Amino acid sequence: MGKAQWIWYPDEFEVYHNILVSNLREQRNEFQHPMWELGRIHNSVLFYKIVDLEKPERFDVKSNGLISVRVNNGRKTEYKYGDGIMLKPGRNFVKVYASRLDGGFPAIYGTGEHFSTDATWKVSMFGKEDEYADTNSHYNSPDMDPCVFFFKYKRIFPTAVTEVNGGKLYDFGSEVMGKLILECKKDNVPCSLFYGESDTEALDEEDCILTDERDLSKGENVFRSRACRYVFIKCNEKLEVSMDFEYVDIHDVGSFKCSDKKINKVWNVCKYTMHLNMREGFYDGIKRDRWIWGGDAYQSLFVNSYLTNDTDIDRRTMTMLRGRDDLTQHINTIIDYSCFWILNLWEYYYFTSDIEFLKKSYPKTFNLIDMFEANRDENSFILGSQKRGDWTFIDWADMDKDGPVCALQMLMYRTYVCMCEMSQVIGDGKDKEFSKKAKNLKKNINKKFWDEEKGGFISSFTSGKREIRRHANILAILYDVTTDERKQSIIEHVINNSEVPAITTPYFKFFELDAMCSIGSFDMFKDMLHSYWGGMVDLGATTMWEQFDPTQKGAEHLEMYGGKYGRSLCHAWGSSPIYLLGRYCLGVRPTSPGYKTFEVRPNLIGLNNAKGTVPLGENHSISIEMRDGTIKIKTDKEGGVLAIRDQLIKIPVNFEIMERM
Amino acid sequence: MGKAQWIWYPDEFEVYHNILVSNLREQRNEFQHPMWELGRIHNSVLFYKIVDLEKPERFDVKSNGLISVRVNNGRKTEYKYGDGIMLKPGRNFVKVYASRLDGGFPAIYGTGEHFSTDATWKVSMFGKEDEYADTNSHYNSPDMDPCVFFFKYKRIFPTAVTEVNGGKLYDFGSEVMGKLILECKKDNVPCSLFYGESDTEALDEEDCILTDERDLSKGENVFRSRACRYVFIKCNEKLEVSMDFEYVDIHDVGSFKCSDKKINKVWNVCKYTMHLNMREGFYDGIKRDRWIWGGDAYQSLFVNSYLTNDTDIDRRTMTMLRGRDDLTQHINTIIDYSCFWILNLWEYYYFTSDIEFLKKSYPKTFNLIDMFEANRDENSFILGSQKRGDWTFIDWADMDKDGPVCALQMLMYRTYVCMCEMSQVIGDGKDKEFSKKAKNLKKNINKKFWDEEKGGFISSFTSGKREIRRHANILAILYDVTTDERKQSIIEHVINNSEVPAITTPYFKFFELDAMCSIGSFDMFKDMLHSYWGGMVDLGATTMWEQFDPTQKGAEHLEMYGGKYGRSLCHAWGSSPIYLLGRYCLGVRPTSPGYKTFEVRPNLIGLNNAKGTVPLGENHSISIEMRDGTIKIKTDKEGGVLAIRDQLIKIPVNFEIMERM
Repeated sequence: MGKAQWIWYPDEFEVYHNILVSNLREQRNEFQHPMWELGRIHNSVLFYKIVDLEKPERFDVKSNGLISVRVNNGRKTEYKYGDGIMLKPGRNFVKVYASRLDGGFPAIYGTGEHFSTDATWKVSMFGKEDEYADTNSHYNSPDMDPCVFFFKYKRIFPTAVTEVNGGKLYDFGSEVMGKLILECKKDNVPCSLFYGESDTEALDEEDCILTDERDLSKGENVFRSRACRYVFIKCNEKLEVSMDFEYVDIHDVGSFKCSDKKINKVWNVCKYTMHLNMREGFYDGIKRDRWIWGGDAYQSLFVNSYLTNDTDIDRRTMTMLRGRDDLTQHINTIIDYSCFWILNLWEYYYFTSDIEFLKKSYPKTFNLIDMFEANRDENSFILGSQKRGDWTFIDWADMDKDGPVCALQMLMYRTYVCMCEMSQVIGDGKDKEFSKKAKNLKKNINKKFWDEEKGGFISSFTSGKREIRRHANILAILYDVTTDERKQSIIEHVINNSEVPAITTPYFKFFELDAMCSIGSFDMFKDMLHSYWGGMVDLGATTMWEQFDPTQKGAEHLEMYGGKYGRSLCHAWGSSPIYLLGRYCLGVRPTSPGYKTFEVRPNLIGLNNAKGTVPLGENHSISIEMRDGTIKIKTDKEGGVLAIRDQLIKIPVNFEIMERM
Repeated sequence: MGKAQWIWYPDEFEVYHNILVSNLREQRNEFQHPMWELGRIHNSVLFYKIVDLEKPERFDVKSNGLISVRVNNGRKTEYKYGDGIMLKPGRNFVKVYASRLDGGFPAIYGTGEHFSTDATWKVSMFGKEDEYADTNSHYNSPDMDPCVFFFKYKRIFPTAVTEVNGGKLYDFGSEVMGKLILECKKDNVPCSLFYGESDTEALDEEDCILTDERDLSKGENVFRSRACRYVFIKCNEKLEVSMDFEYVDIHDVGSFKCSDKKINKVWNVCKYTMHLNMREGFYDGIKRDRWIWGGDAYQSLFVNSYLTNDTDIDRRTMTMLRGRDDLTQHINTIIDYSCFWILNLWEYYYFTSDIEFLKKSYPKTFNLIDMFEANRDENSFILGSQKRGDWTFIDWADMDKDGPVCALQMLMYRTYVCMCEMSQVIGDGKDKEFSKKAKNLKKNINKKFWDEEKGGFISSFTSGKREIRRHANILAILYDVTTDERKQSIIEHVINNSEVPAITTPYFKFFELDAMCSIGSFDMFKDMLHSYWGGMVDLGATTMWEQFDPTQKGAEHLEMYGGKYGRSLCHAWGSSPIYLLGRYCLGVRPTSPGYKTFEVRPNLIGLNNAKGTVPLGENHSISIEMRDGTIKIKTDKEGGVLAIRDQLIKIPVNFEIMERM
C-alpha cells in the first residue's frame, strides 16, 4: 500500500492557490486585482473508490471541512473520524462527500489496512466521465490541510539597523520575503512600517509601495508575508525585529563555477532570485505583482530545468495559469502568453517526458487555439479581439503594433509546431493539420513581413512605418521561421546593428541570447553577463531586476510604470544566465523527451575554466569540468553523447571520463 | 436617483445561498450532501459604470470583502470607504474590483449625488458580452451583506414543559424553525438535545434525526437553526429555553374562509406549512432536506401565487435550482424535475408577465432540452442517461419504469408546449420547431402507451406488464395530451377505479386534483380536503406532511425511507389546497400573462358559503364572497370577467358587484 495522501478535485489545488496568490497584491495597503477572471473552486466534491477486500478492514477518513461517508450506498451511517468504518470482505463501494464553505476547497485523507486515499481514487464529475482525484506529495499526513500552502519558515534577523528620520531602518542584508515579527513588551503600541527593496524606497514614507500600520499587541504582532530588503519602522517603544522567512524547500542540483568571479556572482544572484520567486508557482516578482504570468513562467521553466529536479512547480504553474475551465480571455489577457502556455507544455514534456501531465493538459490547449483562430486576417495572421481586450505584449519596448504584429506571428508559428509535436505524442491524428498550419503561416510571415532592403523582419506591414525591432527577428532565428540566408542577414542588419534599439528587459534578453547562443555566437552573451547582469550586481543588487538600463543613475533604477518604486528588484525573468550557462557553456540539452538521450556540447565561451552540474530529471544529473584543455564528465544517467572536436562520444554511466577539448 | 443597492455578479446571490442551503442537511449530527453538483461562485468581480456628470461629485463605495477603485483607468488611487473619490465633470468610467476569499461572493454598495450602485451597473464577463449586475431590494443599506440572508427573527418560548425520562420535553405548540437558545447561570454545563417534529421522535434519543450536544457557556448557548415542534433536553442545571424563530417576512394577500370548519383549519395549516418552507427559496421540508427540489418548487409556485404577491421567492427558487452555468446533470438529477423547471418558468411568466426574468432565464432552458434530447428512442421518447445517473422520479409510488416511462413523456410534451409559448414571447422563431416536436410526441404517446382494453395509458410498453397507474393518466388530462374521449375513459377506468392504487403523496394529489377540478369534477377534491388533509389535521398536525396514508397508525405515520422518523411533517407540497381552493372554489385564474385579463369562475363545490381573496400580482388582489345564492366581488385590477350562469360579466375596478349565482 502506498502512503495515504490528501486528495481533491482535479486541478483544484492550483485553482485555489492561484485565487489566493492573485488577491495578494497591494499598494499602499490598497488591494490590487488582476485584469483577468480567476478560476472557481467546487465547494462540494464526491470522492469514491471501489475496493475488493479479503478480510474485514477498518477504514478511517477525514476531510478539511464537512464529511459524509457511505459504503455500498447503504443506509446513512453516523461517522466520526477516529472511529472508522468496518468494511466487509468482498466488494466495497466507498463514497465520501466533502464540503467546505469558508472559501477553501474540500479534500479528504483516509487510511485503511490495504488501501488509502491516493491518486487511484476518483471524483464524480456529476454526469460527465469521472476523473482521478488529484494529489500532491507534500500533503501526506492527517494534520495537514492542502488549502494551506506547504511553505517552510526560518527565523531571520536584520543584519543592520540605522536610526534615521525619527525611526529605525532595518536591513536584512539581501532581498527577503516573509512575515515580519515585531516584539514589544507593552500592548497597544502604535507602529508604522515602510517596506523597501531599496533603502531609498523604505525611507520614502509617502511613496514606498508596501506599508502597514498597527497597534502592536501580543498575538497582534506578526505581519502578512511581504518582500523587502529594508523596513523602516516608526514606533515610540523598543522593538525586537525579526522575520519568519517564508520559502519552498527546493533542493538545488544545478551549479556553476568558472574562472570569472563576476560571472560566478551573477550565477549566484540569479539562483537566489529564482528561489525567492519559486513559491506556489513561479512568481514574476515578489514585491509587487506576486502573480503568475505566462511569459515569465515560460522562462522560469528553462531556468528551473537547469537548477533543480523539482518539476512539481512547473506543473503547478501551468495549471495555475490555465485552470480547469475553458477560458474566455487569453492567459493574463495577453495573446503571446497563451502561445507561451502551449510552448511551455511542450518544453516541459521535452524536459521530463511526463506523459501523464501532457495527457491531462493537452486537451486544454484547444480552447486557446480556438481563441487565436477566431480572429485572423486573410493571411492567417492572428489579430486578437479588441472586444475581448486582448493584449499583444511582446516586451516592455516601444514597438509598432499596428495590424498583425510580426513577433506574435512568429510565436504562433512556434505554437503550431509545438501542437504538432504534442499531437504526435498523444496520437490524436491532428499533427498533419497543425503541420500544415505552421507551414502556411511561415510562408506568409516571410512574404509579408520581410523587408529585403532593411535585411530583417518589420514589426508591422499595415502601418507603412516598416519599423525594424529586434524582437521578431530574434524569434525568427530562435524558432527557425526563416531561411539560413535571412538569419545571417538578421544577425548582420538587426542584432549587430547598434542603431536598432537594444533590448532593456532581462525578459527579452533571454530570447535574444538564446537565439544567438543557439547559432554558436557567444560574444554578446559573455558581454551581457558582465555589462548587463554584472552591471546590476555592481550596483549592489542581491537579486536580479525587472528592467535594467545601464545608462540610468541612482533612483532612476527604481522607477517603472510611472511610479517612483514601480520596478521590481527581484524578478524571476532576471535569472536566465542559469539556463544559458547550463545549456551553452556546460552545453547540456535533451535530444529526446526526458533526457532519454542528451547531448553535451561544452564551450568555455572564452573563460579559462568552468565547472558545474546540470539536473537531468528525476534524481539524475551530470557534472562537467573544463580546465587546461580537457573536459571531465560524470553522470548517473545513460543516453548521453559528448559533442567535441567534431566527434560524438558516448558518455558512460557512473564513470568519469576525461577528454581533450 | 434610485436608492443605492448592493450589487453582485448575475445569479451569484442565488448560487451562493443554494450552496449554503444544500450543505445544511444533517442527520444525527452527520452532514448529508445532495447527490448533485452545486454551482460555483466567482471570488472576484469587476463592476463598472460610465457616468456623465455636470458638476464634480463625490462617490463613495464599499465592498463586502476586498475592494479596488479606478476612475478613467487612471493611476491607482489609495481608497478608503468613507473618504470617497471626487469625480470630475464630464465622463467618468468608474471601475470597482471586488474580491472575497472567505467563501462568500463579492458585492459592492456605493452612493454618489446623482448615481448609486444599482441594476444599471455592469459586470465584466472577461471576454464575453458584459452583463448587468444583479440586485435584490432587500439589500439597500451599507451595513448589510448579501452573503447573510435576509431572515428576520422573533423570540418565542415553549408552550409546555414535561419532565420525563430524566430530562425535560419542551413543546413549542406547533412546528417551528429557528435557533434554540439555552440560558444557564453556570458555565461549562453539559447538555444533550434531541429534536422532534413529534414528541415520539424527540423522546427517542437513539433514533431522532436532529441531535446536539454541547457544554453550555455564555456566548456558546445559541444553536444552529433547526426545525422541530418538540425538543427533549437532558441537562443537570436549570435552563431558560427559548428560540429565535427564523423567518422571511412575507405578507399574505390570499385568504379563504367557508362554512366548513375542517376546510378552514386545513387552509390555515397549509398556510403555516407554506410560510415555514418559504425561506432562501421554496424548501421541500424544514426538518430534513431543507433543499430546493424542482418538482416541489413547481407546486410551491402555484400555492404562493394564490397566497402572496411575493414573486422574488419564485425567481430566487428557479435561479437556485438552475444556477448560471450549464448543467451536466438534470436538476436534482431528476429528469422530470428538469421538465418542471421549464414548466415553472412559463407558469411564473404567466402569473407575473415578468419579461425581464423570462429573458434572463429562457436561454438556460436549452441546456436542459439538449440533455433531454441526447437520449431518445425511435419514437422520440426520452429515456435519460444511465451513465449520467438520471432519475425518473414521477412519485413515491411503485411503478413500472421499464424503458420509456409514460408519465415522463407526458411531462416532456408539456415541456415542448411551454417552450413553444416562451419562444413566441421571446420572438426567437423557435416556436414552430417546438410545436412540431410537441405534436409528434403527442401522437407517439397515444400510439404506444394507450391500452384500449384497459381504457387508460400504461406505465411502460417495453416490460409487457401493461400496468395502469394514475400518474400518467392524470398528466394526460392535465396537460391535454389526449382526446376528450380518452379522457372520459381515463376518469371512468383509472381515476374512479378503486382497484388502481391511490395516490399517497400530497405531491401527486396536487396533479390529480388539479386535473379533476380542471374538468369540473370537484367531489374527489372535497372528499380529500376532509379525509386526506383533514385526516392529518385530525391527527394533530400543525403542518402538512410529506406523505399520508390514512390506514397507518401511530408512529407508522413518522416512518419513511427506511427510518423511524424519516418522514417530514412539514412539507411544502402539502399546501396545495391553497391553490386548489383559490383557483377552483374562488375560481380565479389569469387568462393572459400577469393577470392582464383574468377569469373568475366561482364554485361552492358543495359548501354552504365561502369567501376569500386571491392576489393578482404587484399590489393587486380580488375578494370574493359566495353566500345565500349570491356572489360579491371586489378588485382593484381591471381585465377581469366573471363566468357565471353561462355568462361572462365584466368585473369593474374598485367597485363591489353582487350577482346571483
